[in-house]
Amino acid sequence: MEDCIFCKIKVGELPSTKVYEDDDFIIIKDINPVAKIHLIAIPNEHYPSLEMQTEHGAQVLGKILHKIGELGDSLGLENGYRLVINQGEDGGQTVQHLHIHIIGGEKLKNM
Amino acid sequence: MEDCIFCKIKVGELPSTKVYEDDDFIIIKDINPVAKIHLIAIPNEHYPSLEMQTEHGAQVLGKILHKIGELGDSLGLENGYRLVINQGEDGGQTVQHLHIHIIGGEKLKNM
Repeated sequence: MEDCIFCKIKVGELPSTKVYEDDDFIIIKDINPVAKIHLIAIPNEHYPSLEMQTEHGAQVLGKILHKIGELGDSLGLENGYRLVINQGEDGGQTVQHLHIHIIGGEKLKNM
Repeated sequence: MEDCIFCKIKVGELPSTKVYEDDDFIIIKDINPVAKIHLIAIPNEHYPSLEMQTEHGAQVLGKILHKIGELGDSLGLENGYRLVINQGEDGGQTVQHLHIHIIGGEKLKNM
């Protein structure tokens, strides 16, 4: 998608600090962290929202979440973390490319 | 799992207000809502955490998230929502059965 900043980050047209990358997704550092560790997992495929995913996209998302779980320790999240997906206006979604916030590195406040 | 309150809710041994159910998961109302709408999506299969899922569990999780997206409007979440998965101590996970908080019904504060 031409105007999507996450698609641009993926191909290197915009700068980012990548901490992980595989065939399905990248993980970058959030530039406005809300906790000691704040990463964003960005699927390679561009879907604006959950319901706009294909069946394949949904499968890949499941795989990505599982992978994040496996990566936990190596990302400094050995004591746990919070995953957040913001959808639409009420959710505060700011980039219309489905992504997952990974937040941790400290004891998080209740939601 | 004998001591899991979500497994007990699933089979009706503990009370809950179910708002959706299919072969993969149930959605119930959270008894301590943090927003006007606060639901919990609970996969039928018991996995304590993301990384302890099987490959099949990961696929089902992807399907569940996609389904939540499709259900959005019918759950009163037409203006968006936030999905939250708390893992481990730092994340504030209180029940050791992987689940997804669905929060909305109002403009949510930033994380």
